[in-house]
Amino acid sequence: MYLLHEPHHDGSSLYVSDARPSPGDKISLWVRVPAEFLVVSVHARTTVDGEPRFLEAVPDPTIAATLQELRGSSAGEPDTWWRVELELHNPVTHYRFYLRRPDGEPLWLTAAGLLDHDLPDATDFRIATYEAPADWVRDAVIYQIFPDRFARSAAADGRELPDWAIACDWDTTPVIGRGPGTAEQIFGGDLDGIIEHLDHIESLGADTVYLTPIFPARSNHRYDASTFDAVDPLLGGDEALGRLADAVHARGMRLVGDITTNHCGAGHEWFTTALADPDAPERAMFYWSPDGDYVSWNGVRSLPKLNWNAELTRERMIGVLRRWLPMFDGWRVDVANMTGRYRTDDLTHEVAANLRAALSETAPEAMFVAEHMHDSTSDLDRDGWQGTMNYGGFTRPVWTWLAGPDTPAEFMGVPGGIPARGGESAYATIRAFGGRVSWRSLQHSWLLLDSHDAARIRTVTGSNARQIAAVALQATLPGPPMIFAGSEFGLTGWNGESSRTPMPWNRPGDRDESILAAYRALLGLRRSCEALRTGGLRWAYVSADVLAFLRETATETVLVAVRRGAGDAVALPGLGSGTALFGGVDLVDGVLPAVSEASAQIWRLV
Amino acid sequence: MYLLHEPHHDGSSLYVSDARPSPGDKISLWVRVPAEFLVVSVHARTTVDGEPRFLEAVPDPTIAATLQELRGSSAGEPDTWWRVELELHNPVTHYRFYLRRPDGEPLWLTAAGLLDHDLPDATDFRIATYEAPADWVRDAVIYQIFPDRFARSAAADGRELPDWAIACDWDTTPVIGRGPGTAEQIFGGDLDGIIEHLDHIESLGADTVYLTPIFPARSNHRYDASTFDAVDPLLGGDEALGRLADAVHARGMRLVGDITTNHCGAGHEWFTTALADPDAPERAMFYWSPDGDYVSWNGVRSLPKLNWNAELTRERMIGVLRRWLPMFDGWRVDVANMTGRYRTDDLTHEVAANLRAALSETAPEAMFVAEHMHDSTSDLDRDGWQGTMNYGGFTRPVWTWLAGPDTPAEFMGVPGGIPARGGESAYATIRAFGGRVSWRSLQHSWLLLDSHDAARIRTVTGSNARQIAAVALQATLPGPPMIFAGSEFGLTGWNGESSRTPMPWNRPGDRDESILAAYRALLGLRRSCEALRTGGLRWAYVSADVLAFLRETATETVLVAVRRGAGDAVALPGLGSGTALFGGVDLVDGVLPAVSEASAQIWRLV
Repeated sequence: MYLLHEPHHDGSSLYVSDARPSPGDKISLWVRVPAEFLVVSVHARTTVDGEPRFLEAVPDPTIAATLQELRGSSAGEPDTWWRVELELHNPVTHYRFYLRRPDGEPLWLTAAGLLDHDLPDATDFRIATYEAPADWVRDAVIYQIFPDRFARSAAADGRELPDWAIACDWDTTPVIGRGPGTAEQIFGGDLDGIIEHLDHIESLGADTVYLTPIFPARSNHRYDASTFDAVDPLLGGDEALGRLADAVHARGMRLVGDITTNHCGAGHEWFTTALADPDAPERAMFYWSPDGDYVSWNGVRSLPKLNWNAELTRERMIGVLRRWLPMFDGWRVDVANMTGRYRTDDLTHEVAANLRAALSETAPEAMFVAEHMHDSTSDLDRDGWQGTMNYGGFTRPVWTWLAGPDTPAEFMGVPGGIPARGGESAYATIRAFGGRVSWRSLQHSWLLLDSHDAARIRTVTGSNARQIAAVALQATLPGPPMIFAGSEFGLTGWNGESSRTPMPWNRPGDRDESILAAYRALLGLRRSCEALRTGGLRWAYVSADVLAFLRETATETVLVAVRRGAGDAVALPGLGSGTALFGGVDLVDGVLPAVSEASAQIWRLV
Repeated sequence: MYLLHEPHHDGSSLYVSDARPSPGDKISLWVRVPAEFLVVSVHARTTVDGEPRFLEAVPDPTIAATLQELRGSSAGEPDTWWRVELELHNPVTHYRFYLRRPDGEPLWLTAAGLLDHDLPDATDFRIATYEAPADWVRDAVIYQIFPDRFARSAAADGRELPDWAIACDWDTTPVIGRGPGTAEQIFGGDLDGIIEHLDHIESLGADTVYLTPIFPARSNHRYDASTFDAVDPLLGGDEALGRLADAVHARGMRLVGDITTNHCGAGHEWFTTALADPDAPERAMFYWSPDGDYVSWNGVRSLPKLNWNAELTRERMIGVLRRWLPMFDGWRVDVANMTGRYRTDDLTHEVAANLRAALSETAPEAMFVAEHMHDSTSDLDRDGWQGTMNYGGFTRPVWTWLAGPDTPAEFMGVPGGIPARGGESAYATIRAFGGRVSWRSLQHSWLLLDSHDAARIRTVTGSNARQIAAVALQATLPGPPMIFAGSEFGLTGWNGESSRTPMPWNRPGDRDESILAAYRALLGLRRSCEALRTGGLRWAYVSADVLAFLRETATETVLVAVRRGAGDAVALPGLGSGTALFGGVDLVDGVLPAVSEASAQIWRLV
């Protein structure tokens, strides 16, 4: 499926004149219409206070000239760029384009693609006038650390474990991957251990360290905090966090925390007070059934659910978010999808917006990203979460495309494991999710191949070559890549718990150096190449075994071609030549060379 | 495109055990899987407080036996019915189905159809536990009257017209179709005139009369009310409405009003008070710009926009809705899409829910349906509007399919007129809109082919045969048909204003008797056939020129085949024989007979 003949628009600076518009601003939008795609008119259709309105676009020869000049090209710009002015009347302005062809058959161009029939507004392009996140949030390359499994400092040996803990030797993989005991295995990683490996993290190209929870708890994952006011002494306590934050910040890097807004631990001081005394103000912070019992996350008794109707919940949680900001540069929000939702309550958007506002007051540059494992799209673009962990629109489609034939990896709760699907299907899913949110939200949603809640990408793909193909997508699509510590060594795991593998610092033989080199090269490329971070996304070619797309700014076009197995050369007319940025050989006459196995190739077009 | 091989589910009683469930209820869902469609497992995927959950379905042999018995059939039921239990934890429960095939390729069955890739929740099936509308609201056949153009009683001759009015003779069509003067042409129809023609309305099969506004105003359309507390004397005043309501109710029929919740007229007592005195409490009922000017609907000065932040707006409008309920059995809400929306305000869902609650207190059986000319889907299923005027998911796709080649009809604001599209495109649009709302909302959304705001269907189609094809769709798809008075005579009009044609009561030659007969037959069939009102909707066959579908209850299956032009016979394997309900010949061996022009055929399968 050759796609470069299609008209194109996205939210990048090539197509939208202002990435940080204010309410009431008038901005320009452009649509690129390839020369071979004939149209007689182009309109933007927007909605103003809920009412549709058509705005006529006009061909804009200046942009073609500007592009030609910027690129120092002698060839004329073959595409026609249509321009239309749009007033941002509402906080989120919806729009799409209506292209009439000479034969009278009109098409809609929406954020989900080009369509030949009328359709609801759900996939309209969106532009928000809310305060935009700081640039670093968009440009981050994130390294996720599950502290118990990352590294032990010398101080760890002297610490006494709590009663519930099952001490494990560092050099075993987690022996329990599910069920009783899994949450109790303690390997003893700590925060000072992380400091010792910041060179490694930086060498990958990562500039942001994201820590899963660091508060005291009754489990190794610490999502059941017993307080939000202190760092777990097992991790080194508050002082260790201070040391880590200083060391990270000294490198110009950033540190992001993990907060459970949906629940706390059954041992949390808020909850134990509420449980002990029905008249305590804390009682209102939780949900209680008629028989006096408490409501918990998915029925897990150790995780009482927070009630966001209570002013006290809001006050206290805002206090927590702010308290740690000198050390953290932002938060990843656990179970954001359920936060504020319970039976008839649906406070999620309000809670997210309130927390975001409070955070911005204290630290306007803070990151604030939501965990959402299936579909976050209706929770974004609401002045709350800046983005999501993009499992739905990235992890899952990439897995279904690159999964090895007999992978034991679980599919994050979906029965029957990972289905094997072609590139067309992965593309359809990526477009379907991307089409439901603004470009800004897409740019702030983390691209992850795995995490502490999922199988590892090596186990999913079953091969080094396919893992590199996956990493290439992660490093080149819009959204900050998030690397789960250890995957850069090719570590394995068939579900979230079994993937919490201790890092093989002391076992060089367990580290796949070719994978490590690929992570460094690909993430380094993302860091150095503006187009990969901020450029528009134009799909070039999709087939069962090939996904190819362009990332473009006014001055640069990068072509990415990822293949899941051996295949013949593929001609992409119109692309010309390119200099190899990854994968070796240069691009000649727009022909993707034949390959003998899964591969990733990246070129800067000349 | 033969579709009966596809697994199916919808919200009808064949597939959902309870149409009026309460919060917390457990209900059963069934999926019908045709024998030739092999699956190894079926799961429902629902979301509970925002978190996905898979529920395993099991084959349910009892339903097959029950169906066989109810239908007195000796043949076995070939399809497998899978059953799953679902708890309705949230006010609106989302779900879809995951079907795994023997080759491992899973499919999603959603309200928008069967898909081979992962996708966002936007087209999940939905079940609401809000109070359901009364049965009559779902079963209504609605007749829309624009009072100035319907009929003059003898009393009309004696009335003096206001200054702004341009008196028009009844036997002219509106001479101005747009621009100055259009709103001022007064033909003098009144409410007593309607009483004289209730026989005609009833003879069509209609049981609900919907009147566009009847309050005093400065225009013939009266959407610019100067009060909501009295009926326009030009229409006969309050007494005439009382007489009309009595006459309608005496026939067991119902009367529905039209209320502007988005705005009132610039001559309205609320607004003139607010304009005259900045300190008046009414000031808060409107929007004012910094220079003291008022905000109006789309900049039309005669229509100041109501501000729903004001408690007074809420109180007064609730008072209006209730005040007329003894006469009206419900309301159609004008510009519902913009009501409560202005710049940063988005109060639409809250306003709709509050008004619905207030209405239900006074009249639990009242109808409450929203005007929404493009995409209402995100405003439904929120305990507010019961349904919408389904322009987006019915009128527009039917028009694009059945439009005549040189129709002068405008496409409701879309540049370039009505595009000519095939049946596949119309089907895609109907599925796309239907897939965004609950079955209940679909069943309460009016199916209209035209209205006082659109071209007339005769002008759109340009032919008697294609108009009948359109009416057949209107009479047989889910949702109450709404007939715009005069279209049953084949009247014409190229836009809303030009379609406000006076009824040719005194000119038999201007009435197309064959169209009238078709309306009577088709609407009569809907009234008499339970499956057409409440049955499930299963698409059977779609091509450029054919749309065919089944409406099914436990005891009855009706096949509808609509064709837009001459065509060969089409075999639909598995359907067997059927008795003609409309269109003449019986169905033999599931073969749609060849036709020589646009046509509609309806059979009860045996």
